[in-house]
Amino acid sequence: MNGAEALVHTLLAGGVEVCFTNPGTSEMHFVTALDRIADMRCVLGLAEGVVAGAADGYARMAGKPAATLLHLGPGLGNAIANLHNARKARSPVVNIVGEHASYHIQYNTPLTSDIAGIARPVSAWVGTAEDPATIGEQGMAAIAAARAAPGQVATLILPANAAWGEGGVVGTLSEIAPPESVAEDAIEEAAAMLRQPGTLLLLGADALLADSVGLAGDIAAATGCGLLAEGMNKRLQRGAGRVSVDRIPYPVDQALALLAPYKRIVMVGARHPAAFFAYPDTPSLVTSPGCEVFALAGAEQDCPGAIQSLADALDVTPGGAARQALDRPQSPSGAITPETIAEAVAALLPENAIVVDESVTTGRRFLPATAGAPPHDWLQNRGGAIGLGLPMATGAAIACPDRKVVCLESDGCAMYNLPALWTQAREGCDVTTLIFSNRAYNILKGELAKVGAGNPGPRANDMLTLDRPDLSFTKLAAGMGVQAERVEDAEMLSRALARGLASEGPHLIEVVL
Amino acid sequence: MNGAEALVHTLLAGGVEVCFTNPGTSEMHFVTALDRIADMRCVLGLAEGVVAGAADGYARMAGKPAATLLHLGPGLGNAIANLHNARKARSPVVNIVGEHASYHIQYNTPLTSDIAGIARPVSAWVGTAEDPATIGEQGMAAIAAARAAPGQVATLILPANAAWGEGGVVGTLSEIAPPESVAEDAIEEAAAMLRQPGTLLLLGADALLADSVGLAGDIAAATGCGLLAEGMNKRLQRGAGRVSVDRIPYPVDQALALLAPYKRIVMVGARHPAAFFAYPDTPSLVTSPGCEVFALAGAEQDCPGAIQSLADALDVTPGGAARQALDRPQSPSGAITPETIAEAVAALLPENAIVVDESVTTGRRFLPATAGAPPHDWLQNRGGAIGLGLPMATGAAIACPDRKVVCLESDGCAMYNLPALWTQAREGCDVTTLIFSNRAYNILKGELAKVGAGNPGPRANDMLTLDRPDLSFTKLAAGMGVQAERVEDAEMLSRALARGLASEGPHLIEVVL
Repeated sequence: MNGAEALVHTLLAGGVEVCFTNPGTSEMHFVTALDRIADMRCVLGLAEGVVAGAADGYARMAGKPAATLLHLGPGLGNAIANLHNARKARSPVVNIVGEHASYHIQYNTPLTSDIAGIARPVSAWVGTAEDPATIGEQGMAAIAAARAAPGQVATLILPANAAWGEGGVVGTLSEIAPPESVAEDAIEEAAAMLRQPGTLLLLGADALLADSVGLAGDIAAATGCGLLAEGMNKRLQRGAGRVSVDRIPYPVDQALALLAPYKRIVMVGARHPAAFFAYPDTPSLVTSPGCEVFALAGAEQDCPGAIQSLADALDVTPGGAARQALDRPQSPSGAITPETIAEAVAALLPENAIVVDESVTTGRRFLPATAGAPPHDWLQNRGGAIGLGLPMATGAAIACPDRKVVCLESDGCAMYNLPALWTQAREGCDVTTLIFSNRAYNILKGELAKVGAGNPGPRANDMLTLDRPDLSFTKLAAGMGVQAERVEDAEMLSRALARGLASEGPHLIEVVL
Repeated sequence: MNGAEALVHTLLAGGVEVCFTNPGTSEMHFVTALDRIADMRCVLGLAEGVVAGAADGYARMAGKPAATLLHLGPGLGNAIANLHNARKARSPVVNIVGEHASYHIQYNTPLTSDIAGIARPVSAWVGTAEDPATIGEQGMAAIAAARAAPGQVATLILPANAAWGEGGVVGTLSEIAPPESVAEDAIEEAAAMLRQPGTLLLLGADALLADSVGLAGDIAAATGCGLLAEGMNKRLQRGAGRVSVDRIPYPVDQALALLAPYKRIVMVGARHPAAFFAYPDTPSLVTSPGCEVFALAGAEQDCPGAIQSLADALDVTPGGAARQALDRPQSPSGAITPETIAEAVAALLPENAIVVDESVTTGRRFLPATAGAPPHDWLQNRGGAIGLGLPMATGAAIACPDRKVVCLESDGCAMYNLPALWTQAREGCDVTTLIFSNRAYNILKGELAKVGAGNPGPRANDMLTLDRPDLSFTKLAAGMGVQAERVEDAEMLSRALARGLASEGPHLIEVVL
């Protein structure tokens, strides 16, 4: 067995069953090892941003890592933005990055680069498979690092001669440590805070899975505390039959107003609420002055356990909070606006759907509008590096082939990793993508005013608009083999969305605002 | 004057006249400063790979840096692959990377990342503009680093509060040191080597500009030495009226055979010839055993001066070598093959054209076939990170609006930075792009055999092919607003190429192999 084969067997033994790839010469032995070992599913992406974002989407839904296969430092470089997003979401990912044969690096040929240096800013663990005999051990260390709760990005550098050398040894899975429990006195302290008026229970990470958010709702019903989710979330389980929870809004003034009443915040899986960006003469933290903020459990701790312990300490009756009723609007008519788009989605979202939301300005009202839809998962961009939507939808569809994926994507974001559509077509991913075509980096027009940068002239405005020429997403999708249509009013949108959801493969709708 | 305005004035004072941008919130003050200061040309790219690759192409043709404007660590991350290519080409680039306001970084909001850590592997210089008072000084330091001969990548991190703060001070251009001359005794040593039989003069970097390559040809004619260029070159000035020089081929066996006769090599602007990748049982260095290799001048030294001194030391008569005659083939007929494509390009290439070549396997015979075309510049990918072609053509067209750009691009490479086409359409770039559609990472099929990875099965083969579904580049181009056509025989190709060259804007031809 060569090193590459030992590494593929190691990945399988560590529970890694999907490999998103964009390989090159230095990865050829790994590719043929993938070929010979049938249990590993291989999914090709035509650019590495697709590969990394798909691995994030897969991990969020599968609850375990996929591998990526990347071509030396530049291949990893192309993946950095979506690996940043995965890191911020605490999604587990195992990157396998091909490297020159170790003896070849000294000749500084065109693709030689500092792979570890490129990997470190986005990786919790970076290692090199020095030789076939230790490749399994290193592979398992990478997997263990990736699976450390709730998930991390681990990068294993694979020199070509470690891959092709004989004497490969498969790694043995070491036990993955369960997430750390929260100490009893911390639970007592949090419970005491929640008993006081003016306290907010702020949820993030795994505290937003259905059972925990339900119990958190019960705590809020019993104590009268407020209940909110962070602004951008890894996986929000919501919809009819579940407790509905609002999130902290993106605009700073709205966040400040929403949090103003709270004197105390207990955080489970969440971080101290802060503005996404700094603005002149605006605070970075959006909590009220003097607000007492207590981190009961970090994302890496046992958040569901913390909420359970909290409910126990407060003698909360499970099911005490009202669950969201099924409450869908009629399919909308009239012009396409953020409101009618939200209604169309809310009217048609299938039970158990996965919603991938990178809708930016168009989508600010999507969450409240869809609260009464059948139960579904809602995935957001935790890292703020735009371009995650299409790849994440692709990975989520591969993790959950029996579920419908709806991708809500802005036009600006879609242009970063468009080849994800080709992977969706090749793999038959059941993804319906709505592209919101406002022909602008619309968020930046608002931000430009908020940072006080002055009234933009025509040249600045040019840097914020996507017209001249207009993009045609129906043509772009067709070029990648994805069925597409363009809609210009709300009725057309609803019909197109119904068609997309009825199809079993990828379908794209260009929604013209 | 705020910091952003001081920085834009500093860039202009340092000779930086074009800014390729993909901005976000943290860059808004810089964007409005660009708006108010009319001399800076701003060019929007819809993804950062486009921005960085365009800056490389611009720098190669303008001989000076453009700026890029990138959004925090992830925006820089998306640019890493093409910045790697720029670094390997020694192209000057000044990156301006927006950062959170300095006091905001501590809150670790979604886009917070280690920008300097991401920058270092691709940058010769990394600095931060701490405040408006020193922003000009730091900006000039970045420009000086970028312009250090023959060019480097410099990255300046720009915190939002340094951009928006008042009291900006414009930097003063410090003198850019000329490239170091080669010592007299090194010239004597090289001249002595060249007088002996079995010596090769190997050229790279600026030694491949027309005057130097001509004089190098005269040296070869006078001494009988061999004359070659490196395998992948920053800018090769060639064609009728110039001395024609072959390059070291990519396939290792061919490189070994070509270099086998040489006992001595004198290198000007070149590095010791090595295989692009390592292969089992194949040497990394492709020089003959015991070959004496002498680095007369590195790329950072005065290569044209070194060749002049060498010619003087050898008493070489300028013009002694035969210059290439104008020698074009007839426009080809029949099937589309690498040979007929080469003939079509050779038959129609306009005088003073800029050829951007990322044609990989399809293009291995393009250089010999076009040797007798009218004089032109030929740009290659020095860093091996595929995806440079479309952006580099865009930047070259912006640097040289009065010249025709021909981009020879493989289908696999084109998919990495496709939105470059939109920038070409918006800016009216005079680029004719040929996409060679063989629906495969064809090079990898050969590489897989060469690394001895075994016969690929269907699953490995799937990772190397771009079919299922086929990509339609005419639709993809149309989706970006670029006129496109598809050709299936050599006559169609010639007619389409003539149409593209006659148009004054971007034109794409999908060449089906």
